[in-house]
Amino acid sequence: MKRKDNNKMQKIVTVDLGPRSYDVRIGRDLLDQLGPIAAKIVGPGQVAVISESAVAELYGQRAVDSLTAAGMDAWLVSFPAGEVNKTLPTASKLLDQLLSRTPAIDRMTLIVALGGGVTGDLGGFVAATALRGLRWLQCPTTLLSDVDASVGGKTGVDHSAGKNLIGAFHQPSGVLVDVEALRTLSKAELANGLAECVKHAIIRDAKLLDFIEEHTDALLEETEDGKPAFDSDIMIDLIARNVTIKSDVVAGDERESAGRADLNFGHTIGHAIETFVGYENIRHGEAVALGIIAENQLAVNRGLLEPATAERVSKALGRLALPVQQPHLDGGQLWRIMQHDKKARGGKVRIVLAKKLGSVDIYDDITEPEIHRAIDPLSPQ
Amino acid sequence: MKRKDNNKMQKIVTVDLGPRSYDVRIGRDLLDQLGPIAAKIVGPGQVAVISESAVAELYGQRAVDSLTAAGMDAWLVSFPAGEVNKTLPTASKLLDQLLSRTPAIDRMTLIVALGGGVTGDLGGFVAATALRGLRWLQCPTTLLSDVDASVGGKTGVDHSAGKNLIGAFHQPSGVLVDVEALRTLSKAELANGLAECVKHAIIRDAKLLDFIEEHTDALLEETEDGKPAFDSDIMIDLIARNVTIKSDVVAGDERESAGRADLNFGHTIGHAIETFVGYENIRHGEAVALGIIAENQLAVNRGLLEPATAERVSKALGRLALPVQQPHLDGGQLWRIMQHDKKARGGKVRIVLAKKLGSVDIYDDITEPEIHRAIDPLSPQ
Repeated sequence: MKRKDNNKMQKIVTVDLGPRSYDVRIGRDLLDQLGPIAAKIVGPGQVAVISESAVAELYGQRAVDSLTAAGMDAWLVSFPAGEVNKTLPTASKLLDQLLSRTPAIDRMTLIVALGGGVTGDLGGFVAATALRGLRWLQCPTTLLSDVDASVGGKTGVDHSAGKNLIGAFHQPSGVLVDVEALRTLSKAELANGLAECVKHAIIRDAKLLDFIEEHTDALLEETEDGKPAFDSDIMIDLIARNVTIKSDVVAGDERESAGRADLNFGHTIGHAIETFVGYENIRHGEAVALGIIAENQLAVNRGLLEPATAERVSKALGRLALPVQQPHLDGGQLWRIMQHDKKARGGKVRIVLAKKLGSVDIYDDITEPEIHRAIDPLSPQ
Repeated sequence: MKRKDNNKMQKIVTVDLGPRSYDVRIGRDLLDQLGPIAAKIVGPGQVAVISESAVAELYGQRAVDSLTAAGMDAWLVSFPAGEVNKTLPTASKLLDQLLSRTPAIDRMTLIVALGGGVTGDLGGFVAATALRGLRWLQCPTTLLSDVDASVGGKTGVDHSAGKNLIGAFHQPSGVLVDVEALRTLSKAELANGLAECVKHAIIRDAKLLDFIEEHTDALLEETEDGKPAFDSDIMIDLIARNVTIKSDVVAGDERESAGRADLNFGHTIGHAIETFVGYENIRHGEAVALGIIAENQLAVNRGLLEPATAERVSKALGRLALPVQQPHLDGGQLWRIMQHDKKARGGKVRIVLAKKLGSVDIYDDITEPEIHRAIDPLSPQ
């Protein structure tokens, strides 16, 4: 076990879902603790580590080694990286590999999903459906999946009719967030997760925005050759605070009926921008940053939010290496996309708007002219 | 609505699973009540009726008509009948059809699974995975699915590595057992379900065996052209009693960890016979009848069960048009099949044995020679 004895800070956030509760552990080099943690859950049994190709290459062997050292029969199952592979056919191939394993897998077999959002969704879905549900551990390796996908139990795959249309709610038995795994990401990939952190601050915790602003430089620091050189303790703190917020929201609404709607802040317009621009051309967090700016402008226009607060948020997003402008957006098209969003009801567009930092409300009386005006700040002057 | 006003007996058994509790309604012509019952659950929304081809032809339009009359947007989605089609590719095609519907389905869309065991498993699995879980109603149309698959929330599809290896636990919002739908079955198909009724009697309710013996003729009565002419009230009674037993067992063990094991009575040897003979060559209930006889013989040989009781059960099964003999079984092969059963643990064969009617225990010290002797009664003298 590699372990820095002088620096063992680890934070644990419990996601409180009654019998389906689990711990999210956030710390350094947690990948090396995967074995003992897995063995504690299922004993010395079988573990399939599902991982996307790029992550499998970086961390797959280390995960398998830790599991093997703990006495488990562990093996790696990888799939080609990318959202384009988050499909039922890929899930089917992974299931084929699991089910043709010798000796055969059984209900004590554990799944580990090692990778970013695609791996969590796909690996979790395989865990949800193999033998009618196996236990699984989630080891996210991107900041976006650390602060977002790691809590909530949403698993699934995309369909030509839309994203995440096939899936299941299947809570993991535990989540291991190894912040050191983030050191292979680009700055843009870190920023991708930071957008969701800003979202969490706005919907629930004004002080989290102070924290992000204060530590922006420490979070985005780079080595001379452009690798992330963030302060691990600050990163652990940031992730733990965000996981706590998300877990509070999810605990109040496990199956996404009402309270979880707040998490959609920045996403109604953000998703529309993502669709308009094309998923291949913009990161999710980048679209969310633009969505936050536009939705805040909408709130300002309605007199709900102080213009200075909207401005402060835009500036914070910009400093986090996130886009704050997006030329050539078409308000009419965005409006039509929003009307077809799966969270729209009877054609009514629903948007979560901020009234001040830490406090939001949902509005379903949004009009098309408001959307046109909301995207004004996104157009370069 | 066709309704016999002079004969409205309907029985309701509540499957008690806390927040996932639901009612099993058993009565005449319940298919015509599908609309109001569905509307009560989701309001005047969308309903997809999933049905295997043969059943869709017999009852599909009637189900859709009832739903439409209740103000719902209902449509039929059928798939080719047969266990051979209970696969992930078939589920995928059904999901494609659902997800490409216009207007798009949403989380209020209801699924109705109308048909036998294959339809319940497949339709339930589609409901479990579409949009991460839609509500569903189960309308079983075979006696086997009435008394067995209608309770428990097991959904899933087969894989080349084995039956039901991909799936989910997804409880329905309600079950409608229309006994009149059984009038298109053959006697052998009715008998297929009666084997599970005898199993339920042996594991939990000696008086149910009295009831079955007393009403065997009434249950298997036929019209001159060989159609079932059972007494509806007796059939309703039979199904309600069996659903009650199964639901008590399942309520104590929703995710199948311990108590549900009793339901495996007759199935350890029964499944091995099914595999040995070939699934295409024997009905599930027929294999279970043979399994019950063999497992009772094993219990007699161990001195656990009175020989007279074993004999009584064999006679009852024979009168129910079930096989009581199966030539050319190979004890050694059955033993090896049992060792690879997914319910075996570490190669140990586990069998539920009867001590008397209504009382069983699980044994994991079964030896191969005992299996050889247990199948003796199945060989013609």
